[in-house]
Amino acid sequence: MTEFVKRHVPHRPEELQHMLNALNVRSLEELSEKIVPATIRRKEPLRLPAPASEAEILQEMRQLASRNRFWRTYIGMGYYGTYTPPVIQRMVLENPAWYSAYTPYQPEIAQGRLELLMLFQTMVSDLTGLPVANASLLDEATAGIEALHMFYSYARQPRKPFFVDKGLHPQVIAVVKTRAWGLGISLHIGRPEEARWEEYFGALLAYPTTEGWVRPYFPELITAAKSAGTQVAVASDLLFLTIAEAPGKLGADVVLGSSQRFGVPMGYGGPHAAFFAAAEAYKRHMPGRIVGLSIDAEGRPAYRLALQTREQHIKRERATSNICTAQVLLAHMATLYALYHGPEGLQAIAQRIHTYTTTLAETLKNLSLEPTYASFFDTIHLALTPDLQAKVRTIAEQHEINLRYYANGAVGLSLDETTTERDVAELASIFAEALGKPTPTLHLAERESIPSALRRNSPYLTHPAFHRYRGEHQLTRFLHRLVSKDLSLVHSMIPLGSCTMKLNPVAALMPLSWRELNSLHPFVPKEQAEGYQIMLSRLEEYLCEITGFSRVSFQPNSGAQGEYTGLMVIRKYHESRGEAHRDIVLVPASAHGTNPASAVLAGYQVVVIKTDSQGNIDLTDLDEKLRQYAQRIAAIMITYPSTHGVYEETIREVCEKAHAVGGQVYMDGANLNAQVGLTSPALIGADVCHMNLHKTFAIPHGGGGPGMGPIAVAEHLAPFLPTHPVIPSGGEKGIDAVSAAPYGSGLILWISYAYIRMLGAEGLRYASQIALLNANYLKVRLEPYYPVLYTGEGGWVAHEFILDLRPFKNKAGIEVEDIAKRLMDFGFHAPTISFPVPGTLMIEPTESEDLAELERFIQAMAHIRGEIEDILQGKIPLEESPLRRAPHTLQAVTASQWNRPYSREEAAFPAPWLREYKFWPACARIDHAYGDRNLVCVCPPTESYAESLSLDS
Amino acid sequence: MTEFVKRHVPHRPEELQHMLNALNVRSLEELSEKIVPATIRRKEPLRLPAPASEAEILQEMRQLASRNRFWRTYIGMGYYGTYTPPVIQRMVLENPAWYSAYTPYQPEIAQGRLELLMLFQTMVSDLTGLPVANASLLDEATAGIEALHMFYSYARQPRKPFFVDKGLHPQVIAVVKTRAWGLGISLHIGRPEEARWEEYFGALLAYPTTEGWVRPYFPELITAAKSAGTQVAVASDLLFLTIAEAPGKLGADVVLGSSQRFGVPMGYGGPHAAFFAAAEAYKRHMPGRIVGLSIDAEGRPAYRLALQTREQHIKRERATSNICTAQVLLAHMATLYALYHGPEGLQAIAQRIHTYTTTLAETLKNLSLEPTYASFFDTIHLALTPDLQAKVRTIAEQHEINLRYYANGAVGLSLDETTTERDVAELASIFAEALGKPTPTLHLAERESIPSALRRNSPYLTHPAFHRYRGEHQLTRFLHRLVSKDLSLVHSMIPLGSCTMKLNPVAALMPLSWRELNSLHPFVPKEQAEGYQIMLSRLEEYLCEITGFSRVSFQPNSGAQGEYTGLMVIRKYHESRGEAHRDIVLVPASAHGTNPASAVLAGYQVVVIKTDSQGNIDLTDLDEKLRQYAQRIAAIMITYPSTHGVYEETIREVCEKAHAVGGQVYMDGANLNAQVGLTSPALIGADVCHMNLHKTFAIPHGGGGPGMGPIAVAEHLAPFLPTHPVIPSGGEKGIDAVSAAPYGSGLILWISYAYIRMLGAEGLRYASQIALLNANYLKVRLEPYYPVLYTGEGGWVAHEFILDLRPFKNKAGIEVEDIAKRLMDFGFHAPTISFPVPGTLMIEPTESEDLAELERFIQAMAHIRGEIEDILQGKIPLEESPLRRAPHTLQAVTASQWNRPYSREEAAFPAPWLREYKFWPACARIDHAYGDRNLVCVCPPTESYAESLSLDS
Repeated sequence: MTEFVKRHVPHRPEELQHMLNALNVRSLEELSEKIVPATIRRKEPLRLPAPASEAEILQEMRQLASRNRFWRTYIGMGYYGTYTPPVIQRMVLENPAWYSAYTPYQPEIAQGRLELLMLFQTMVSDLTGLPVANASLLDEATAGIEALHMFYSYARQPRKPFFVDKGLHPQVIAVVKTRAWGLGISLHIGRPEEARWEEYFGALLAYPTTEGWVRPYFPELITAAKSAGTQVAVASDLLFLTIAEAPGKLGADVVLGSSQRFGVPMGYGGPHAAFFAAAEAYKRHMPGRIVGLSIDAEGRPAYRLALQTREQHIKRERATSNICTAQVLLAHMATLYALYHGPEGLQAIAQRIHTYTTTLAETLKNLSLEPTYASFFDTIHLALTPDLQAKVRTIAEQHEINLRYYANGAVGLSLDETTTERDVAELASIFAEALGKPTPTLHLAERESIPSALRRNSPYLTHPAFHRYRGEHQLTRFLHRLVSKDLSLVHSMIPLGSCTMKLNPVAALMPLSWRELNSLHPFVPKEQAEGYQIMLSRLEEYLCEITGFSRVSFQPNSGAQGEYTGLMVIRKYHESRGEAHRDIVLVPASAHGTNPASAVLAGYQVVVIKTDSQGNIDLTDLDEKLRQYAQRIAAIMITYPSTHGVYEETIREVCEKAHAVGGQVYMDGANLNAQVGLTSPALIGADVCHMNLHKTFAIPHGGGGPGMGPIAVAEHLAPFLPTHPVIPSGGEKGIDAVSAAPYGSGLILWISYAYIRMLGAEGLRYASQIALLNANYLKVRLEPYYPVLYTGEGGWVAHEFILDLRPFKNKAGIEVEDIAKRLMDFGFHAPTISFPVPGTLMIEPTESEDLAELERFIQAMAHIRGEIEDILQGKIPLEESPLRRAPHTLQAVTASQWNRPYSREEAAFPAPWLREYKFWPACARIDHAYGDRNLVCVCPPTESYAESLSLDS
Repeated sequence: MTEFVKRHVPHRPEELQHMLNALNVRSLEELSEKIVPATIRRKEPLRLPAPASEAEILQEMRQLASRNRFWRTYIGMGYYGTYTPPVIQRMVLENPAWYSAYTPYQPEIAQGRLELLMLFQTMVSDLTGLPVANASLLDEATAGIEALHMFYSYARQPRKPFFVDKGLHPQVIAVVKTRAWGLGISLHIGRPEEARWEEYFGALLAYPTTEGWVRPYFPELITAAKSAGTQVAVASDLLFLTIAEAPGKLGADVVLGSSQRFGVPMGYGGPHAAFFAAAEAYKRHMPGRIVGLSIDAEGRPAYRLALQTREQHIKRERATSNICTAQVLLAHMATLYALYHGPEGLQAIAQRIHTYTTTLAETLKNLSLEPTYASFFDTIHLALTPDLQAKVRTIAEQHEINLRYYANGAVGLSLDETTTERDVAELASIFAEALGKPTPTLHLAERESIPSALRRNSPYLTHPAFHRYRGEHQLTRFLHRLVSKDLSLVHSMIPLGSCTMKLNPVAALMPLSWRELNSLHPFVPKEQAEGYQIMLSRLEEYLCEITGFSRVSFQPNSGAQGEYTGLMVIRKYHESRGEAHRDIVLVPASAHGTNPASAVLAGYQVVVIKTDSQGNIDLTDLDEKLRQYAQRIAAIMITYPSTHGVYEETIREVCEKAHAVGGQVYMDGANLNAQVGLTSPALIGADVCHMNLHKTFAIPHGGGGPGMGPIAVAEHLAPFLPTHPVIPSGGEKGIDAVSAAPYGSGLILWISYAYIRMLGAEGLRYASQIALLNANYLKVRLEPYYPVLYTGEGGWVAHEFILDLRPFKNKAGIEVEDIAKRLMDFGFHAPTISFPVPGTLMIEPTESEDLAELERFIQAMAHIRGEIEDILQGKIPLEESPLRRAPHTLQAVTASQWNRPYSREEAAFPAPWLREYKFWPACARIDHAYGDRNLVCVCPPTESYAESLSLDS
């Protein structure tokens, strides 16, 4: 076993033996043979390069990184150079306490990041001039399709077309086209000046345009559209909005864009946090997650995800969005950038960029190069001849400078925070040289190039948080106080079924801080990204080997995006064979909620397949539906092992049946962690699958994002993989883009690359086996206390399993939530709650947890079972039990008053090891109904912050 | 004001105004004019380059870093390539919660690092085979002089000489020579085989030697020396000791060396932690800090610094060591490396290196190059002709490889953890080429080159901690639990008088992780360290400008080392002028305890000068002593502003008087933070000063080290600056080396460089002014509650001031310690206790703390004053008061039982903001007397660890 395997899978030989004994098997091989059905078992080892040690992989990645070229880049198009303040890089991006946390579904142990997300929403709301903002979306382009879909559904699926501003970035237009095609919405792509607004149900406008133009009559455009009853979304730029009028104030219904340039490195495409703000009317129609303020059981304010029930659990086939993943870690960075600089600091940065841009424009004018537009923020468009463009390009390349080169000969230049006066002079000199003129002298422009009517006058970021933490100590301590409220993998295991929370190895994460990797613009010529291209092609090869497929698209930025992409690829495939009539996707009742939602967004009708009493796909029902819909069936979506934590024996049969009617098999990659090296989607019979790289392949969850959901496809689907309008990629008959960047969030792909390289074939397989071992060991140890809902042949479970708590509810009203909250008192994050079966807990320990950690969890669960028993036997009333009163706060336990029928020690230290391991929930149980009734999703105005906790003097 | 100044000095304009108003001054200029005596005020601005932003300084350092060459290096000599496990790098080296903590003088809020240091001591004790180990020293060479001095004092200053093994590294011999010269001890440097042991009071032997030789008869040497009554110290190597017999088992009294190769990068010389272990008899004579186990007020085990009273406070002119600074952060890294690899992992690394070395030796033999020694660990010595050496060197340099080239033609090669089989082959090929022979094929050696009698058989690192945390999750969580017990700058200000705890900016610290900087061997040719050399010369220039002196030596690794070095330089200066008879150093009574100690180590007699009732140097007493000792006076040591926190008006007069009798003026740099940009040591009249770069110039305290204490000298002293036996440096008539590496801990000098570059002339001066403002504001606000002991003209204090608590002790027995411990309940680290005046608190807020933080501290102190009043008025008995019972633990406050006359809330949350800021002391007040009576300084044996807190299964 290589060095790194020990770090990832910590089991000592004697522990391993102890666990195998408990399961009555002699070896891991025997164990996995008993669990994985023979029909789908992988025979040969994975063909992967020999594993690398931590030192070797760092060396390898350093070498690859050095093959990227490091040119100054003025391409713009939604991606800009920015400085990440070092304190934010170190304290957040490089801090596992931030990045290894899960999505804040358990808000009592996630108050730190919820508070910071609330500040993100506040920042977005302030800058856009709209009252409601969500906690981030994947990227500007997908934020665009969320606006489209929200308007479409808000207007009750009108038959009118949607207007798309030609001035949007090409990748935004491409992604919108994909979605519109899926939903059957027609698009008009054109100049808004010429739009007849009454013809459209909605519009997406650019402010400024991709060519940099700030239309002086932008307010009039919005007014015109609005008075025609057209819903208006505006794609904009947060930094621009620090000095330009907020579209919300001009009447826009939605403002969206990317917050990348607020301190988040370009990362060859991502990850970054998109923002999305809307008018009051859309409050309950917003896509994505929204953080809200509610109160806890002790009556104090507390943050939580608002309107959470809208998410996957509910909407399913009535979905208007399939988005769960937010870009939490990146939203944090953008928010902290704003805290660090404050409104006047942001404005100064924006103003400096604007002044330099104006200076450059003036200088170019003096060279007789008149910019196309007189009003702009940071971008200049020059309508040159192709000849002159070529000259400019040659000289710029000698300077190791990238500009934007339009096909028609025009040239674009976007300046950013990192641009210096010297850079401006150099840019001017390039044009002068191309024109054969002497190098011009620079005079800092004194005039503005944003029309005065569009200059911003209203204040923003007035909340005290944007003023208190400018000093590095002050920001450090604020961050420390916040993160102390959040439970993450630095505290204990997070045994979430279906959300694999394995180790995120530092060695794999370190390269994210290397500027040779993180500062690359996604649209630089491929030869400047050689290190990336090599990594991408190798990673594609590894993932193909692991899944058994032939090609991978890295574009989808999340699991749900992967589902949508896979289904769109299938759609295009059918269409190419003249089978465009296939409009039904079969989805088992037990599927993740995103499955039907993605199918709907891809324009399909969803037909649900029942599950039998064992939780398996009901073959009879399947047969019936196949017979009923036959030629209309486009695909079946399956998850394997099933969401019930079982390797279904019939899975190949299911796939064969679907294929028999001409359908494709889509495999949800959520449970890939139980397949790697043991079986594969291709072996099982699927045609396409997505991979949650942020679960199975060690990318951290980031406290709720980023994720990555690339898809792998069989050869016949490869021609249809998504293309990109700027960087040639994808299949030759591919669908339009599904994400803004050609390879999705390129930067974090290095994590999965390093993970696979360090584990190697044997290590990956071993990790899967230990995931099975850990799950089955826990199952065997917890069975005496709680019934296990589903098992496979021989009583085995896969890498996760479900405990049925419904009997306790039926007998005594004990909710699964009570157990989840009580686990917090033990310092544990609850397993997955009520998915896929309401009233149950789904537990997945993963391979990175050792026996000692499992034993602590078992002790906690056994103790809780005793507390349940006390209630069942009437020893203590439910309402007064430690279960119902959980979680217990420091405030409650240290108060002079203690009137509960159990002791303080029983409340807060129910296990002896808690003296060492105690983690305090930051608030008592949160009242969700209250929060949803009184939706507050931006920080209350300054006045209400009167000296409550802080000492602002 | 530049960007970074705002990060370092966070005061907003309105806050600044508020504070100036409170002091009745209109501006900072007026304030500093009122405080700093006109006679010494600096008139012109500092001549420093324009300040750099964070982004600019990172860019600048990256460029400098790229000018270092990155050759494979086999020089050895105490410095070896090693891999820092990424999880240790990120979680410790790059984590302000670890590096920004102070020395653990307040153990109740430092249990995490004390526990880890205890494991360091255990590791050292295990590997050396000796029962007592300290918590690290500065480097191997200075550890050598500590052994010399300890033996010398243990044997009651015998007149016999000390034996020094010729086989020691040259820098160790040089440093020992310096100390012996200072103390007047004669040295015999020779081959121990020829030693007549009865002639020496002690000896320092090498195991293995610098040439790599493991003397097969090493046990016999020790036995012979011991039976002659000679005390034996052995300089060794921890990695070697994982496979070789422990010298302690062979009878050595002391074993010392460097722990660098346990995962700590070479850093062009440091910092690294030296280790020092001794036999039982020396328990109470050990130099440096020792962590011990005691119990707390609730009867639970708790760690603390043992025998603490030995430190500076007490020994003064009876000192046998002046060492306070340990290398805590580096000791942590070495310990964690051992935890990460475990004994079998360490052994495997050592064995691999040994096998490669043997393989190389065999291959060279086949080339007819017989290594000089048949028994070795990792180093081969080849006695070549100068001609052949030159050939080898030329070829090696073509390969970008550094070997050790002896002046006599010999060549040395030391292998390390990073050496691969390919490297071994390449090394062999170089020699083959030099000999004109074909490249040999490699056969991995099967035999051992360590004599079997010296192979280690005894187990080590048997403590469970060395076995539990091999998985990355497990180690991460262990580290997280540890650091959660430690208060650091990430929590709150640490207002320690005389120990400036300012911001340690991340931008300045980031380069420490760059391998272009951290992996350089200190003995590579200077032209390979061009980036370092440029930085060193610039930093020297800046420090000269700041101090007003002409040259700097970076060799001293701590403030106390700086004092010693400065005094040795003075000694050499006097000697050069035929005034070797000057043997007295005047030290004011208020001086830091290290001042007299350093004077003693430099061989001087100490004469104390009284202070007057205002705390100033008593000029009458000074005159008298000057008259009395006249020509015998070598120097006077002063601190400025005085250790009483006052700018003494008479300081120039003091210096002039000392000069008048031919003495030199040594300035202790402890309070330089109040001088920078406002005055300077040279302006005041000093001839030499040291600079605590780890205080004034932003190097973090590391939880108790590393430090850096370079000295700056006036022109006439420059020729005497310390030299180095390997890398030419220092003055032309310089003293021998004082540290192992030519530039001390080279790596961390980048921090001070970046700090100075980012603040610039204006920023540095502004920081000093704000340090004065903060101190005087606090003084004015605290005066109503506590008497301020000393003030200067007009009632002003300098950057620190003393609160007199003795009245409370006199009236009601309240100890200064009671207030210190009670401050912990408020989440604050106590100010400096009982220095320089027993029964007082010395407070220094520094410039990095904002008004809100000062206000929190004032509230805490005011609240405590109320609690004092309650005791004075008899409302509550002292023994039952929250003061005496402080600090309050979570365990106490959450226990069912609460029988105190004050409430739980009053105990743990005496201020409302503590709901947000609470930090829990990990234990109740520690019983120091108990710990000193029952000295336990290695972890108790495994059996006693029966399942108390952990779940080892």
